[in-house]
Amino acid sequence: MPTLYHHPMSSASRFVRLILTEYGFHADLIDEQPWEKRRDFLALNPAGSLPVYVDDSMRALCGASVISEYLDETHGVLKRDRRLLAEDPFQRAEIRRLTEWFLQKMERDVTRPLARERVYKLQMTPDQGGGAPDSKILRTARANIRQHMKYLSWLAGSRTWLAGDRLSYADLAAAAALSVLDYLGEIDWSESPTAKDWYQRLKSRPSFRPLLTDRVRGLTPVSHYADLDF
Amino acid sequence: MPTLYHHPMSSASRFVRLILTEYGFHADLIDEQPWEKRRDFLALNPAGSLPVYVDDSMRALCGASVISEYLDETHGVLKRDRRLLAEDPFQRAEIRRLTEWFLQKMERDVTRPLARERVYKLQMTPDQGGGAPDSKILRTARANIRQHMKYLSWLAGSRTWLAGDRLSYADLAAAAALSVLDYLGEIDWSESPTAKDWYQRLKSRPSFRPLLTDRVRGLTPVSHYADLDF
Repeated sequence: MPTLYHHPMSSASRFVRLILTEYGFHADLIDEQPWEKRRDFLALNPAGSLPVYVDDSMRALCGASVISEYLDETHGVLKRDRRLLAEDPFQRAEIRRLTEWFLQKMERDVTRPLARERVYKLQMTPDQGGGAPDSKILRTARANIRQHMKYLSWLAGSRTWLAGDRLSYADLAAAAALSVLDYLGEIDWSESPTAKDWYQRLKSRPSFRPLLTDRVRGLTPVSHYADLDF
Repeated sequence: MPTLYHHPMSSASRFVRLILTEYGFHADLIDEQPWEKRRDFLALNPAGSLPVYVDDSMRALCGASVISEYLDETHGVLKRDRRLLAEDPFQRAEIRRLTEWFLQKMERDVTRPLARERVYKLQMTPDQGGGAPDSKILRTARANIRQHMKYLSWLAGSRTWLAGDRLSYADLAAAAALSVLDYLGEIDWSESPTAKDWYQRLKSRPSFRPLLTDRVRGLTPVSHYADLDF
């Protein structure tokens, strides 16, 4: 069986888990704490980042973008109307632009700083950078959430799915990032009803269930986290 | 004619310029200073990042990865042995992994902090974050160069081109990043003879010539910058 090295609070890891489940793959999940810089993990991915997918031939694919493109080329292409990337090159570009938006831009502005300060630092030793959250970083990241929720609401309000008429990688990427923030109780859904409707549709998909049972040691999710009717 | 919004010291912009020239495209270049957050530029790319490619139908493609995938799908696929992405999905994954390495990881560790401190801050107003370089950031970035040059040397020493037997996006991405650092005189080539041999091959390609005539106002390149026999 293939293996996915992941962290439950990594949005890129969650994105790949959603793709795998949507396409009917089973993969063994291995929890990796990348800040430990394990020798065996660095041998798989010298960049030391998550996720890493190891296929049945023991070949490693590193990073959400590399894995998702590979899965599209080897499986998505056969899925017809369940394909998570479009056929048309310009439509594919739009899906990729939004996937990057949520897994890179929102990650830098919001998700990573909040996950790092509130989760990773609990799991790190002082040598690894562990300790109390930096309140200035929390404040900046929280101020950035609003702008991202506005953009998400605009997309969700003007299109059936975020990149167009069909569910795509863009929706899975955005939902992966939002699910991390939602676990941490960082999203005020009452401010973003359109985004909430869209997220509810995503959250109700069978592929989302495993994410809703994730738990991080020492950090209980917000009460509505696994609630489909939040 | 298509248009490319770029900055001469942005490695992602240089990467796309190299692809366009390798594939025989002509594009109008527009110098963009993304920190100015021009309204018209943000309308093209709400992420506000470079490069942005606007095709003949006035459709915008945002970011090096989106543009390079689009160019592969619409043009590269017809280029046979001059295609800059491979046919085989796993080989494509390796090219993408290395392209990301140089345009994202090396960008974070080295290229962006050095370009920002030494170039962008000269062009920014104080309100935009301009001013004198931060010596601590310079020191950290310079310490990171060595590790990246070692990895590049290892790749260049064990393969014909960085990702395998053929010139690919991986080589163009690495050379784009290195050319920015070389302009700034940040690379000690005597320490990395294998990387130097590889870079010399890239630098001698006709597609590289326009990059070697780039000049940034107020900052002369290192003396060997445009020298093919450095």
